[in-house]
Amino acid sequence: MLRFKLTIEYDGTPFVGWQRQENGPSVQQAIEEAASAYCQTEIVVHGAGRTDAGVHAKAQVAHVDLPRGDGGDKVRDALNAHLRSSPIAIVQAEQVSEEFHARFSAIKRHYLYRIVTRRAPLALDIKRAWWLTKPLDAEAMSQAARVLIGKHDFTSFRATECQAKTPVKTIDAITVTQSGDEVEVSVKALSFLHHQVRNIVGTLSLVGEGKWTEGDVAKALAEKDRSAAGPTAPAHGLYLTEVRYPA
Amino acid sequence: MLRFKLTIEYDGTPFVGWQRQENGPSVQQAIEEAASAYCQTEIVVHGAGRTDAGVHAKAQVAHVDLPRGDGGDKVRDALNAHLRSSPIAIVQAEQVSEEFHARFSAIKRHYLYRIVTRRAPLALDIKRAWWLTKPLDAEAMSQAARVLIGKHDFTSFRATECQAKTPVKTIDAITVTQSGDEVEVSVKALSFLHHQVRNIVGTLSLVGEGKWTEGDVAKALAEKDRSAAGPTAPAHGLYLTEVRYPA
Repeated sequence: MLRFKLTIEYDGTPFVGWQRQENGPSVQQAIEEAASAYCQTEIVVHGAGRTDAGVHAKAQVAHVDLPRGDGGDKVRDALNAHLRSSPIAIVQAEQVSEEFHARFSAIKRHYLYRIVTRRAPLALDIKRAWWLTKPLDAEAMSQAARVLIGKHDFTSFRATECQAKTPVKTIDAITVTQSGDEVEVSVKALSFLHHQVRNIVGTLSLVGEGKWTEGDVAKALAEKDRSAAGPTAPAHGLYLTEVRYPA
Repeated sequence: MLRFKLTIEYDGTPFVGWQRQENGPSVQQAIEEAASAYCQTEIVVHGAGRTDAGVHAKAQVAHVDLPRGDGGDKVRDALNAHLRSSPIAIVQAEQVSEEFHARFSAIKRHYLYRIVTRRAPLALDIKRAWWLTKPLDAEAMSQAARVLIGKHDFTSFRATECQAKTPVKTIDAITVTQSGDEVEVSVKALSFLHHQVRNIVGTLSLVGEGKWTEGDVAKALAEKDRSAAGPTAPAHGLYLTEVRYPA
């Protein structure tokens, strides 16, 4: 068996999420079926992390063990051939050692959240960005985001159905940038709670709208209660953009 | 009657093109139906130019005469409400004088062509960019493009079914830029022949692949024969990005 690290791009729109589920098509299932068809035996795909229904990935990472001697380029092309009918692309396949584990070896995960603020609905970016009709103060959002950087109990930013053992996480960076009518929020951490990025973005959007201050964000964090923080931003603005591993 | 200038964004994928046609849904028809429903009378929409089936617009321009006293913002919101089921958005509606004509008053049209070069198919940018599996030399394309700038007989870059009276056009600028695996070709002119931008991009792609030289492009132009130039790049990489009018 040879282990391969797969770097995967997908449009999350038609999927119930990364993880296999009973209630609809998942990205994991599509890649497992492609790999199983390629290898003529059942293959399991291990992802670096789950993404919710509708969340996109520019560079999700997964690993697979394949009972064939093909090189990375051939694995990539073969999987893409089998994935032709799905909005999923294997951008890279590299042979790695058996110690490599997509989830447990990861040392950093990067997410990007795209917001477009304008009166008109989105025609080209529909299902690719969160549409808000009023402008956001990106500067104020950036300022308020500093409250969330570092090691904290993120209970207020955690989905009630989150299965993580602890609500304590360390956020390394949150940057908010503006370009024309687009606001991008980038968040980096070793790992995240369920809905954590979307809840952070939903809360920062209140600051951007001028309804909340930096102090309100600090208070919401301190309350350790999901209802104290802002709404969950929609899935379709979120992109998993990078998963990092030790060199 | 009040005349409005409309700035329009659309995803060209589901349309037979800008112009009304018998064989399928057009962007013009969708906006005419929206305006007619809003005004309860038949409204004609005049576009700055036709875009082919599958071609996108970030800022197509059109004008309409409306028998209502509403201001621009209300017109924009009303049309968008009627366009909700289509990937078309009225980004702006401004009242203009009766002398304004979307097509005849235009003094410049800008197009952008997006190419992504990588082995893996496109998952997020499918139908939004031309996918080529081999890298392009953007520098060489940029160099060769200079041959096409200025006033020329563009017969070699004109669709055989083009209805323009003359094949002579003046191209003001062609820029080719590269960022990662994406190559963008931007073209500016007062007006274009049918398929002119797509034929220019298809020809420059031969230069980018190393199959053609700048001299080959000059020769193709001089031959005044469509078959002397390169292929027509696919519609889905092309965006009408701006139409300019006198201040």
